[in-house]
Formats: sequence, C-alpha cells, structure tokens
Amino acid sequence: MNGAESLVQTLLNAGVDCCFANPGTSEMHMVEAIDGHDDFRAVLCLFEGVCTGAADGYARMTGKPATTLLHLGAGLANGVANMHNARRASSPLINLVGEHAVHHVAYDAPLTSDVAGVAQPMSAWVRTATSSESLSLDAIDAVQASLAANSDHMGNVATLIIPADCAWGEGRNAPSGIPPVERARASVEVVSGIANRMGERSLLLIDGAGMSEEGVQQAGRIAEHCGCQAITVTFPARVEGGPGLPKIGRLPYFPEHIIDLLADVDHLVLAGARSPVSFFAYRNLPSDLVPEHCKVDLLVHRHMDVVAALADLADAQGAPAEPVEVNLKARPAIPEGPLNAHTIALTLGAKIPEMSIITTDSGGGAAAFPVLQTCVSHSWLNLTGGSIGGGGPVAVGAAVACPDRPVYALLGDGGAGYTIQYLWTAAREKLNITSIIYSNRSYGILDVEYRRLGINDVGDKAASLFDLSNPDINWVDLARGYGVPGVRVRTGAELAAALSEAENTDGPYLIEAILA
Amino acid sequence: MNGAESLVQTLLNAGVDCCFANPGTSEMHMVEAIDGHDDFRAVLCLFEGVCTGAADGYARMTGKPATTLLHLGAGLANGVANMHNARRASSPLINLVGEHAVHHVAYDAPLTSDVAGVAQPMSAWVRTATSSESLSLDAIDAVQASLAANSDHMGNVATLIIPADCAWGEGRNAPSGIPPVERARASVEVVSGIANRMGERSLLLIDGAGMSEEGVQQAGRIAEHCGCQAITVTFPARVEGGPGLPKIGRLPYFPEHIIDLLADVDHLVLAGARSPVSFFAYRNLPSDLVPEHCKVDLLVHRHMDVVAALADLADAQGAPAEPVEVNLKARPAIPEGPLNAHTIALTLGAKIPEMSIITTDSGGGAAAFPVLQTCVSHSWLNLTGGSIGGGGPVAVGAAVACPDRPVYALLGDGGAGYTIQYLWTAAREKLNITSIIYSNRSYGILDVEYRRLGINDVGDKAASLFDLSNPDINWVDLARGYGVPGVRVRTGAELAAALSEAENTDGPYLIEAILA
Repeated sequence: MNGAESLVQTLLNAGVDCCFANPGTSEMHMVEAIDGHDDFRAVLCLFEGVCTGAADGYARMTGKPATTLLHLGAGLANGVANMHNARRASSPLINLVGEHAVHHVAYDAPLTSDVAGVAQPMSAWVRTATSSESLSLDAIDAVQASLAANSDHMGNVATLIIPADCAWGEGRNAPSGIPPVERARASVEVVSGIANRMGERSLLLIDGAGMSEEGVQQAGRIAEHCGCQAITVTFPARVEGGPGLPKIGRLPYFPEHIIDLLADVDHLVLAGARSPVSFFAYRNLPSDLVPEHCKVDLLVHRHMDVVAALADLADAQGAPAEPVEVNLKARPAIPEGPLNAHTIALTLGAKIPEMSIITTDSGGGAAAFPVLQTCVSHSWLNLTGGSIGGGGPVAVGAAVACPDRPVYALLGDGGAGYTIQYLWTAAREKLNITSIIYSNRSYGILDVEYRRLGINDVGDKAASLFDLSNPDINWVDLARGYGVPGVRVRTGAELAAALSEAENTDGPYLIEAILA
Repeated sequence: MNGAESLVQTLLNAGVDCCFANPGTSEMHMVEAIDGHDDFRAVLCLFEGVCTGAADGYARMTGKPATTLLHLGAGLANGVANMHNARRASSPLINLVGEHAVHHVAYDAPLTSDVAGVAQPMSAWVRTATSSESLSLDAIDAVQASLAANSDHMGNVATLIIPADCAWGEGRNAPSGIPPVERARASVEVVSGIANRMGERSLLLIDGAGMSEEGVQQAGRIAEHCGCQAITVTFPARVEGGPGLPKIGRLPYFPEHIIDLLADVDHLVLAGARSPVSFFAYRNLPSDLVPEHCKVDLLVHRHMDVVAALADLADAQGAPAEPVEVNLKARPAIPEGPLNAHTIALTLGAKIPEMSIITTDSGGGAAAFPVLQTCVSHSWLNLTGGSIGGGGPVAVGAAVACPDRPVYALLGDGGAGYTIQYLWTAAREKLNITSIIYSNRSYGILDVEYRRLGINDVGDKAASLFDLSNPDINWVDLARGYGVPGVRVRTGAELAAALSEAENTDGPYLIEAILA
C-alpha cells in the first residue's frame, strides 16, 4: 500500500470517514486512495471555502472531524476564512493539503508557495509530512490534534500537508485506536465558591458544550434557583433549543447593548464562555465591556467539561433536579405584510418542522433565535468567527452529517455572496437545505457602522461601497444556475407557501426574501 | 486630517488612484477618506479574490499598482489565491487591510487573527502600521515595495495592515514623490558572450517585459539573425501579439512536451524567464527539464531591464534593426460544427476586434494563443501562478484600466467556479468584458493527470471528483443572476453570432460554449 492508502485507512480506523474535496493534480494519489474505500465519503465542492465550512458544520453536528482535501497553498488559502470560523467554533477539522514532492519544492514551480505558512494563522496544529512510511502516524496525530482539549484561541483545526512523494511512496498502516479525550473538570472549590456567590444579580454566560441539551438543562436549574439570567454568547457554535428546554437568552452584538445588559449585573459567571468584549474597537467605547463593579468568576473553560461543571454548580446550590420554567410550545401566526428580519422569524417559527437545523451568517437571521425557542426542537449553528460566508457551507456539512433532519440556512445577501457555490454541492448531494436569502441589497451592517462614526452625510462613493443593488442580484437565477429550484417572496404568506414548497421538494431549495 | 486621509492623499500623490474594495467595519475610516476624493476610484467586489485578481489585471495593463481594501485576516485570506497569481506575475499590488485598533487586539475578539501571518506567504512586503502619524510614510514604502525590482520568487505584492486607531488618529501628509525604479542592465560581457554562443540550436526563452511590443521586436531580431526559436514561457503575465510583430511561440505545459521541445536545443538563453521545470512532480520525470547536453545562459533576470538586454543582444549580434519575418494578417474562417478549444480559437480569431485584451484561466483558452497571432493586435494576460479562478477578476482590472479596449475572458468552467462573483462587478461598472466559459462539465485536467498515474480504471468515486455535471451548471443563469446578459452556444456559427451580440452590447456579456 502507498502512503495515501495508509492515510485513508488510518483515518477510517479512527472513525474519520468523510471528506469535502476540491483536489488538484498533486492530490491524485489521495483521490486514488479514497476511490478504493466505499466507506469513505467524498463530497466535491466548487470552492475550498465550501469544503472548510462544510467540515465545520459536519463537526458541529457529529462532534467528530471531517477532512478536507485541498490543492497546495493557493487552494488552502481559499479555505482559510471558514477555517477561521471553525477555529472560533472549536470544531474538529482535518485539512489534507497536497504539496509538491519534497525534491520538487526547491524548483519553485509556479504553484509553489509556503503551504504551512498559509495554514498557520488558523490552525492549532500544522505538519508537513516527511515520509510515506510515517504518513499514517501523521494522520493519527492530526486526528488527536483535532479532538484535543485546546484553548478557545487555538481551536481545533489540524492541517496535514502531504508532499506527493509521501502519498505515492510505500506506506505503513498505523496502529488503530485513538485514546479518548479527557476534559478537565472544574474544581470543587471553584464550584462551591461560585455557588455561594451567585444571586439575582448574577449572570451565567454559557458557550461550547454548555449549550447542548444537557448543558441547557443544567443552566436552567441554576438560573431558576438563583433567580438570575442564563444566556449564551453572541456567536455560539451550536445551541440546542425548543419547547421543554429552559429559556436561554443571548448576548447582544453591539457594545452599547452589552454595556446596558451588564449595567445591572454584579457577578458574571463564565461557563465555557469568555468575558464579553467589543466585537470591534470604537473610539469612545471600552474593549472590555464588563463594568468595574462586576465581579467575574470563571467556572469552566470551554475546552474543559462544561456540562459537568454546570451540573456540579446546580447541585452545589441545591437546585431542584429539573428546571420548571421551560419554553412552552407556542407557534406564532404567519404574519401579514412585508418581510423583515422579525416577520421572517415569525414565519419560520410557524412553519419549520421538528428537529430542524438552523445555520446563520450575517444578516437578519439572528432575529429567529428567540422566536424559535417556543416553536420546535432545533439545533442552532451560528456564525462564530465573524467571517461572513460561512452559513451556506456549514449547512452543507450539517446536512451531510444529519440526512434525516431538515436544514435551514438563514443568510444575508452580502454574506451569501462569498461562497454561493455551496448550492451546487447541495444540489449534487440532494441535501435537504432550504436557503433563505435576506435580500436587502446592501451590506446593511456597514451603513450602520459608518453612521456610528458620527457621519450622517454619507457621500455617494461611501454609499456605493455599502450598496448591493446596481445591479440587484437575482438569487433565484443563481440558484437555478447551480441546479437548485427557488422562488422570490415578499410577504409572510408568500414565504410560508415557499417554505411548504421547500419541504415538499427533494433536495435543496432557495427562497429569496425581499426585505421591505 | 486623520491617518486614513493622509494615506489616501499620499497614494494619490504617488499616482495610485484605484481601489478594488470589500471593506468591513474596521475599514470605515478608510471608506470615509476615499469618499472625500473624487479622483480616487473605488470599485466594489463581492468577494476578496475578485479584488486581488482585479488589482493584478489593472497592474498588468498599467504597470502601476492598484490597491485593494480588505477586512482583517479572514477577508485578506479570501484574496490570497489571486495574490499568489499576482506574485507570479510580478504585478505591483498594494493590499490595504484593516485591523483592530492596537489596544483591541489583545482582547482576541472573534474576528481577530494573525493578519500579517495571512499576508506573509504571498507578499514581498508586509507591514502593520504602528501610528496614525507615520501611516503616510508607510504608504510611501508600500508603493515603493510594489514597484521595486524584486526577484521573481518574491513578486511585488505589498500588504499594509492598518489598525483602526492608526486610521482614525491624527495623520500627517508624507512628502510626495516616489523615486523612479532603476532596473539593472545586463552586463556587456554577458551580452557579448551570449551573442557569440547563439546559433540555430539556441532557444531564446522570454518572460516579463521581454514580451512587451518592444521586447518582442527585439526578440524577433535575434531569432531571425540566429535562425533559432524565440518563445515565451508557459504562463506569461502579459504578451503583446498580432500582425506586424514577430512570431513568438510558447513553452508547452506538460513536462514530456517540454522535454521533446528541448531535445534538439543545445543552448538555452533566458531573457526574463526562468529555466523550465515541471509544473508538478511525477514519479518518472525529472523536475529540471533542461537536458544535460544543453548549456543554459542567463541573459537577464525578469526584475532587470529585459527589453534593453534583448536590444543589446540583437545589436551585439549585428542583427538588422527590424525583424522581417512577422505575423501576416490572416483571419481564419468561422469553423463549422461543434465547439472545442481549437474551433473556439478560430472563431475568436475570425471575430474579435483590434486591440482586444485576452485573459485566460484554466481550460481551453490557451489554444487561442497561436491562432490570434495573425488576427489582431492584442494583449494576452495569462494565468500565471496556476491558482485557477484568476481569469475573470484579472479581466475586471484590465477593463477598469483600459475602458476603451474590449476584454475577452477565456475561462474553463472549473476555474470560473471559484470567483464567478466578478460578473457582478463587471455589470455594476459596465465593463466591456465578454466572458467565454469553456463548458466541458469537468475538471478535465484532473482526469488527464489521474490517467497519467497509469490508472486506466477510474472508479466511480474518483470520476465523481473530476465531474462538474450532476447537476450541469447553467452559466447563463448565473450571469443573469449577477446582472449580465448571456447565451449558450454549441457551434462556431452560434459562437460567432454571440460574439457579435456581445460587441453590440454595452457592458459585459457571457457566452457559455458547450464543448463537444
């Protein structure tokens, strides 16, 4: 067996069996190895940012890494923006990146570049393989790095660079079996100290596994017992929500709103979350948004066992075993009139089926978060790193991971413009993804942020840089071009009908929601 | 004036007055500064790879840098693949990349990443500004770095990272004026030595400014005098061609073909070109493709004065002042029957107007290179670094630079899939770009390369990774979605009619050429 075959076999032995691929010539031996394994799934994407975003979505739904297969430094570079989001989601992800044969690099052929240098900024682990015989051991290390309990900052993106001669040379199977990941527990002293300090003016801020169903249950016990709020962060990787679960709020986006929220908080407890900071810097606002009077307690880091820490904290407080105050099921009526972020949220709340998966990007999708809590059980996969263009690819990975669950991608038109090629993969793989494009024909956030500088007189040139009209993008045409049926809607009733049509359509569907 | 204003004013003073932009919140002060200058053009792109590719095309046509305006590390990352191509083209390019305010970086807000690390692999020069007062001096240095006589390997991409506080703080105008770039001359000894050694079995290999009209003329003098061939490289950044100019061939792509070509060559003279190496490594082929019996002479590096070296060499040989053997004007007939790379080339040769600019990517476009030599005066902008997806964006930049010249983008369907968003900018700016998509519904090169491994039995999974059907992409629908009219054609006659329609259409047009 050659190195490529040993690599694929080793990945399969470790339970890694899915690849989002955009290969080139230097990856042909990897393609050959994949071709030989029926149980190793390969999903072709037209653009590498779809590969890395899809692997992120797959990981958020399965807890295990998918691989990507990318072509040299330039191909990897196209995947870096969504590697950034995956890093911020702490998603396990393994990039398999081809490289020229070791002896060939020195000739600096046109596609040569510093592949490891491209990988470094967004990877927790980078290695360039040095021999075909050790490639399977490299694969083991990559899997372990992707699953390791890394800090939030590092994330869990592992990039293995595979010179062509390491793929084509003689390989060796690695011993199978990856030791289970140990996640550290919060200490008893920390838990009991925090349990004693919490009260009505505490705020429990939760991220990571703390937003799993079990984590949310435990957070509900704590919040109910203390009479305090429990909320998740602005950009959580995954949140389980719906009727029967405790009500969980969410940290706002703009720093002023966070400052307002924290004004009445004396005690901030961090459970897998980091202390709130401003997303961007502003001249007259602090970076650290926690007020001076507020004590901050770190219950547990995200890479530790967040759920256990929440359970321990609830137990230490003597909270009842189950929260009582949970979301009651109450679907909204389909709203009348024109569409905006809120009426879209209501219509989604009225229509989407149980067990839906929601992915978001920039745009108005965030408004659906509170609405859906009372509607159906769902998994919410948020944009994490702020690099827009992630929502569509994440939907691809989630749909591949969970073929029996409907996926809704709520995408601003600006963000959807970056990686719209995900639609083609959705059509090819007949993925059950309904994309909703929030079409306001602008980079709306930039217009807001520009005025926040104090500029009320926006010049023509500045305005043109926030404007996505001239020409209007026709998202239904784009979808059709990629083999995805779709429709344009302007009212709640039209959106509701389109959602029914999407549900009755095999494979993907796109709805362009024209915002009023 | 703030730092951003001083930066824009300094760029204008240095003759840099065009920006391909995809800004975010951290670049709002840059937007404000651009808004204040009517003579600083800002072109919005939906994706950063369009920005960097367009800046490359602009530079190839003007010889001066355009800027990009990009958003933090993730936004820059989306531009890296086409920065790679720009690096290989030695195109002057200045990336202006926003960054969090200096005091804010340490808070590691979600969009924080190592911006300089992202820039490094494809940039010859990277600087993170440290104060608003020195930002204009940074701009001067960036302009100089983009125009410096750098080695081929480094290229001329300069990346200036601008923390928001350096943009909003008090700025100072830099002294205007950039010293002219001095390009070293080839020494008299080198020139006369090579002049004496050249003969019929020499091959003159030319790149860089050597493929300008003047360079081609000088190369023609030499080739005619010695009775040898003069050819350009496989991936030249820009070639001037057409009737009245000497016939210039081109190095093939596949290593076997290069080996065949060089078998009868005893003496290789490099004029701005690098010695031929295989694009990829193969198990049974050398990386260095020059046969042992062949002497290699370096006349002049690409970053030196290539045209002067060619002129000096021709003079040293006593060649006549003007070449006699030039391309005679002979347009082909419009071919009958189905389309392939050759019949498309013939149809283009029959139809395209004088002074056309041609951009290429992967796909069959290369077949048009020899055909067009006898048809019309034209500038040929090739894919340089092998990172596919450059051809459309480069067309945008060329069209912005040369509004009076028609631009033809010859794009394989695989490559066009990476950065198809260029169409929207073409529509918005009413750019005179006719895109021809070579629609063979496959990554054709990969099928070829896979079989070159000796695999004749291509499995279903491997085949699926080279296949762009299932579903077929409808490029006319995609174009319409971005506001660009278009048509699908299957024969030479249909293509000819579509080319006429494109010529009569204001702004861009797309032709999907279905290959037989």
